[in-house]
Amino acid sequence: MKDTKIIIPEKDIPARWYNIMADMPNLPQAPLHPATRQPVTPDDLSAIFPLALIEQEVSRERWIDIPEEVREIYALWRPSPLYRAHRLEKALGTPAKIYYKYEGVSPAGSHKPNTSIPQAYYNKKAGIRRIATETGAGQWGSSMALAGQLFGLDVTVYMVKVSYNQKPYRRIAMETWGAEVHASPSAVTQSGKKALEADPENPGSLGLAISEAVEDAATHDDTNYALGSVLNHVCLHQTVIGLEARKQLEIAGDFPDIIIGCCGGGSNLAGIAFPFIADKINGRDLRVIAVEPASCPTLTKGEFRYDYGDVAGLTPFLMMYTLGHDFIPPGIHAGGLRYHADSPLVCQLYHDGLIEAKAYHQLGVFEAALQFARTESIIPAPETAHAIKAVIDEALLCKEEGKERTILFNLSGHGYLDLQAYADFLEGKLTDYEYPEEKIKEALSRLPVF
Amino acid sequence: MKDTKIIIPEKDIPARWYNIMADMPNLPQAPLHPATRQPVTPDDLSAIFPLALIEQEVSRERWIDIPEEVREIYALWRPSPLYRAHRLEKALGTPAKIYYKYEGVSPAGSHKPNTSIPQAYYNKKAGIRRIATETGAGQWGSSMALAGQLFGLDVTVYMVKVSYNQKPYRRIAMETWGAEVHASPSAVTQSGKKALEADPENPGSLGLAISEAVEDAATHDDTNYALGSVLNHVCLHQTVIGLEARKQLEIAGDFPDIIIGCCGGGSNLAGIAFPFIADKINGRDLRVIAVEPASCPTLTKGEFRYDYGDVAGLTPFLMMYTLGHDFIPPGIHAGGLRYHADSPLVCQLYHDGLIEAKAYHQLGVFEAALQFARTESIIPAPETAHAIKAVIDEALLCKEEGKERTILFNLSGHGYLDLQAYADFLEGKLTDYEYPEEKIKEALSRLPVF
Repeated sequence: MKDTKIIIPEKDIPARWYNIMADMPNLPQAPLHPATRQPVTPDDLSAIFPLALIEQEVSRERWIDIPEEVREIYALWRPSPLYRAHRLEKALGTPAKIYYKYEGVSPAGSHKPNTSIPQAYYNKKAGIRRIATETGAGQWGSSMALAGQLFGLDVTVYMVKVSYNQKPYRRIAMETWGAEVHASPSAVTQSGKKALEADPENPGSLGLAISEAVEDAATHDDTNYALGSVLNHVCLHQTVIGLEARKQLEIAGDFPDIIIGCCGGGSNLAGIAFPFIADKINGRDLRVIAVEPASCPTLTKGEFRYDYGDVAGLTPFLMMYTLGHDFIPPGIHAGGLRYHADSPLVCQLYHDGLIEAKAYHQLGVFEAALQFARTESIIPAPETAHAIKAVIDEALLCKEEGKERTILFNLSGHGYLDLQAYADFLEGKLTDYEYPEEKIKEALSRLPVF
Repeated sequence: MKDTKIIIPEKDIPARWYNIMADMPNLPQAPLHPATRQPVTPDDLSAIFPLALIEQEVSRERWIDIPEEVREIYALWRPSPLYRAHRLEKALGTPAKIYYKYEGVSPAGSHKPNTSIPQAYYNKKAGIRRIATETGAGQWGSSMALAGQLFGLDVTVYMVKVSYNQKPYRRIAMETWGAEVHASPSAVTQSGKKALEADPENPGSLGLAISEAVEDAATHDDTNYALGSVLNHVCLHQTVIGLEARKQLEIAGDFPDIIIGCCGGGSNLAGIAFPFIADKINGRDLRVIAVEPASCPTLTKGEFRYDYGDVAGLTPFLMMYTLGHDFIPPGIHAGGLRYHADSPLVCQLYHDGLIEAKAYHQLGVFEAALQFARTESIIPAPETAHAIKAVIDEALLCKEEGKERTILFNLSGHGYLDLQAYADFLEGKLTDYEYPEEKIKEALSRLPVF
């Protein structure tokens, strides 16, 4: 019997995170203070982040130790299995070898606890009592709720309204783990009130929810902010995925030719890909593909420039590919990919040609998801299904070209709480939507020029 | 760092199922034909089951080989991890060692695919084109849908109406895996039509849904029936759980003093417990506890006698503890435990004192579930939470008595698709309900006497 999963023991949970800033040919340009437009200092960030995370945000050290308390909680689900997709390969008739790292085994069902756990840990150690955060589809909010519960921190979540209404189950999961959840825009913050005054029907966006959570943290002494993607320390924490996958592929005697991840803020792609990118920088033949929705085409249609991370302009300016911080993406089901920009690290690597990007429409994405569920048996999250669509396309290209390439992708989350999206797809209720280029240009024209 | 999970490799997926009938002091009395009331012959069963499963149903062989094709699909999630509940133990302050086998890692989220996979395999081999089956909470239906998809069989599911309405997500999962789903009672079968004529608001029951599925299978040549619990071959297939747990506990250097499982039809309890019960028969000090809801107290308040497995009286008479086959349990959230009887094997072992039983009210059960989710991080299915309540009670007893007992339980499924039940609990909408003894007596009085 051929092995389906490559499993490694708990002692192989990485002892250190990998920091790609030690190896990048060009570092991202410094974040700028939203008011002074001068480079942000650690002091500027200390109102909302603990010192340990600020240090990780700016560190150039290649390896950063993972605290034992964090590894002990990682052990509740890590190391996650690396699967060989025998059944999908057979269905496609491809000579490609397809591997996937399954992060849906975490208690919250996605890769997000890889960073919520250390973030809760460092905040608890710094004496913080409460975390304010935002969530799109709810993956991050539920992961932060879980982490807060495990370390004894209160958690307040601002959840993008369209997801709050579409996905009550994730809200309930957050509440089961003890968090308080508000639909965003909410009447709890000034940013939320302002958005509701302008448009009471505002469906919300990740950028707006970030404004609310940052404001909540900045205006309460005992409260810090936590972000589930985009920032350097988040990408850092996610590298446990790629580090484990590297060890697992060694056991299989393989090395990836292509690495694929969906890309909303960029952290799950960073997690699986960063630990391999140093090889590419050193000349190894390797493609890394970021997959995004055509309805929110940050890398493929955005511009590389300074922009705020949020709608209200409370966060620093970050150097990113962006569609404009007041871009309001349509309410597609892959809520976790509805963000106007991407991680500065991912953007810089894309800018430098070390990462490629593809954008897909949702109908093709759900077809890919269904093919995956009906062969490999796992029902993937709609976000993850974007990666699967690209995997299937690459595997079919291998078939066409007769090439036996090794494809590694991150199965970043399961779709148990996204089944309504599958129902909508099966009932023919979904349509494709390409965000109009003129609306992107218009949003970008409102950005400050440096 | 102490190990949290005990993991064994794919080669340790059991090669044989364990058949407890080889070791029972008293075998269950023979099933009787519903019309002739004579012992059922293999021929009687061949209209709805393939020969291989009929042979397993009556076999007295201790070990039955698992086909390689079945083991290959088991490898999509098996061996499942055995967890040591370090964090729950600490929260309880108990000297007990608590282990749980986590069956929620299966693609359908429960232990049910352990039997749906071999059932689909044997039916496919026998040339069957379609499977008709019933489901309560939807765990079984989604597992059968998955298995049918993997072996290329069509699947028709009759889903208890109260769950169909409460749990649309499980229906969607079934459809995602390609099955057709009817709310039961349905207008598709005579049994369903009759029930709807008597009461158009009939919320359905597992017994009634069984009638519909059996009728569908019996009236279509290319269609067989599949049952997710109760029968001997189902319990047999589930023994992979206990066989793996035994090997994992050996690695930990432990042996259980107490084994706990929730009990609806009895198969998840059978799965975890049967491979240990031979030791008890041979004198080993071991308690096995079946946990059921106070609203459907089959073992604790039922009678041990012949009854039908379904409402319409289409199935053979089985010797079981029963509340009467036309018992309609209230619509509690643990839909998988709403069955009027239990597996004849479990019932016989209970009758012979080899298994104990406890019944719990749902408020206490959900409190236990919340404590588990907030310490161990997994949100359990409401059915499973019944077992957890008993585990916590036993662990607290260990604390009171200063005994370091080893408790093993089956975490038979996760609760991602049961989160509405958690919301109802958190919002104070759940109440306790004890099924009145006079109503049980009345239902039992309608049974034929032999």
